[in-house]
Amino acid sequence: MPTLGIDLGGTSVRAAVVDAKGKLLSSAKVAVTDRKPPGVVETIAQAADEALKRAGVKVDGCGVGAAGQIHKDSGVISVAPNLGWRNVPLADLLQKRLGYGVKVVNDLSAAAWGELHAGAGRGSQDMLVVFVGSGVGSAIIADGRLVQGGGGVAGELGHIKVVPGGRLCGCGEHGCLEAYVGGHNLIAQTKELLASGRSRILESLVADSDPDSITPVTLEKAADAGDAEAKELHERASRFLAIAVANQVTMLNPSRLLLGGGVLTYCPGIRQRVLDGVQMWSSQTSREGLLVADAELGDDSGIIGAALLVA
Amino acid sequence: MPTLGIDLGGTSVRAAVVDAKGKLLSSAKVAVTDRKPPGVVETIAQAADEALKRAGVKVDGCGVGAAGQIHKDSGVISVAPNLGWRNVPLADLLQKRLGYGVKVVNDLSAAAWGELHAGAGRGSQDMLVVFVGSGVGSAIIADGRLVQGGGGVAGELGHIKVVPGGRLCGCGEHGCLEAYVGGHNLIAQTKELLASGRSRILESLVADSDPDSITPVTLEKAADAGDAEAKELHERASRFLAIAVANQVTMLNPSRLLLGGGVLTYCPGIRQRVLDGVQMWSSQTSREGLLVADAELGDDSGIIGAALLVA
Repeated sequence: MPTLGIDLGGTSVRAAVVDAKGKLLSSAKVAVTDRKPPGVVETIAQAADEALKRAGVKVDGCGVGAAGQIHKDSGVISVAPNLGWRNVPLADLLQKRLGYGVKVVNDLSAAAWGELHAGAGRGSQDMLVVFVGSGVGSAIIADGRLVQGGGGVAGELGHIKVVPGGRLCGCGEHGCLEAYVGGHNLIAQTKELLASGRSRILESLVADSDPDSITPVTLEKAADAGDAEAKELHERASRFLAIAVANQVTMLNPSRLLLGGGVLTYCPGIRQRVLDGVQMWSSQTSREGLLVADAELGDDSGIIGAALLVA
Repeated sequence: MPTLGIDLGGTSVRAAVVDAKGKLLSSAKVAVTDRKPPGVVETIAQAADEALKRAGVKVDGCGVGAAGQIHKDSGVISVAPNLGWRNVPLADLLQKRLGYGVKVVNDLSAAAWGELHAGAGRGSQDMLVVFVGSGVGSAIIADGRLVQGGGGVAGELGHIKVVPGGRLCGCGEHGCLEAYVGGHNLIAQTKELLASGRSRILESLVADSDPDSITPVTLEKAADAGDAEAKELHERASRFLAIAVANQVTMLNPSRLLLGGGVLTYCPGIRQRVLDGVQMWSSQTSREGLLVADAELGDDSGIIGAALLVA
């Protein structure tokens, strides 16, 4: 029987009906207007109803992928920063409202699960998925099972320390990988560089001299065009990421490494640096038999994975 | 029913009969004289017979912990450096000889399994075990299961790169954690320092000026006594280890972190640095609820764990 997948974000809920093979049969999106738990539960139910009506089928379970820290057995969301939630028993609340089983997992875990069963991870049992978008995150599959950690927050690759005491990260700590190579921070560092007046080539690449037009691609273009300062910044960020990913390959010995997220998709220079780094710096035994591929389900990976988690 | 645990080293085989709770009922040790697979299988069978005779019980399974790279499903030893083995189907060979089921795992995985069920890991489901002895290794338990990796070599903490292109490691690569903080390498670096003639305090601590009397404890003593160069070496090694362990806590979110091995046991300064590093550098969410403890089964952890893996 098909199942329901939910992608719960801070501004909208997306629901989809997904068949047992991971094919998306229908989907619906509803804006989150009331962020309190009962309001969000109603919004999820609305989106679910709409998706079910469109697909014209019944489902017998619902999986939810949510940005945040989720207790793996109870489905309680300990912390969901973009909803302002602490300790919300979402699985229970939603199960009461929908009338069938609900499982809640972290959004990256859901995405990894989707890639594993219906995307670039098919055929693999041991996988590391690295996403570099505005933030940096990862998900771990070992022996076909999600590694969630004792508190449900395993995979926080963005918050490993690469420069203890270094740049302030959005998490409040210093020197995290994300503070150097997360998209938000690549932009912030590029803006700092622009403001310093030391980078002529970068200046020439910023549209209308408007710092708000800067993206990570602007930095990569400036580096490619020979801007020494931009190159240094780009190189530092790429190198931190490449070493971090290589070291996780050494630790986890995945048979597949998937790369995804906007920065890795639109900055081929950073992506290439990661590929090179894995070859150079992961231990020889750990990279034997390793396949590196790009995540292929894009924005649908989480919703498909959430649905497949209860299939 | 009790089971048999085997600790397969390069110079000796130890066999033990272990009950279902992880209690060691008897043990026997036999030297390895013939390192070819049939010879080692015979040696294991000898040690097993002796242990069984001493315990006066029957067993219905045998677990083997071996230093090397082991294919997790087949029990084939891909590489065992200290036996000079490549692709030896030990599980099959031994099963034919003993007449009951045999499971072969990496020695650190066996040790972690022992600690999980009969040692300092009891009650935990998500655990990271870090051993720093002559080498540096780790083992990962997620959701009560061993994380072995696609090729059976997960947990190679000693071979993550801390200084890309840095000190040559015994594995043939450069800049591995083990090249700085593994016991062998702590000794090598301390000898280099002694030979440089720059460390008076260190010189005064080396018995009979014999470099071969140096242990990691010598380095720690020199650092504690205020030898600036020894302090720098000690600090660098401890810091690399502390950051590496903290970062793995961030990635894996274990509920328990166990520390073991000679260096962490006999160099309290290095151990303390790891404890401090985990507090300072692991992500806040990952260290919530984390318990840090010392491995408590010592040399028996592997043999007990191997036996419990088939119990």
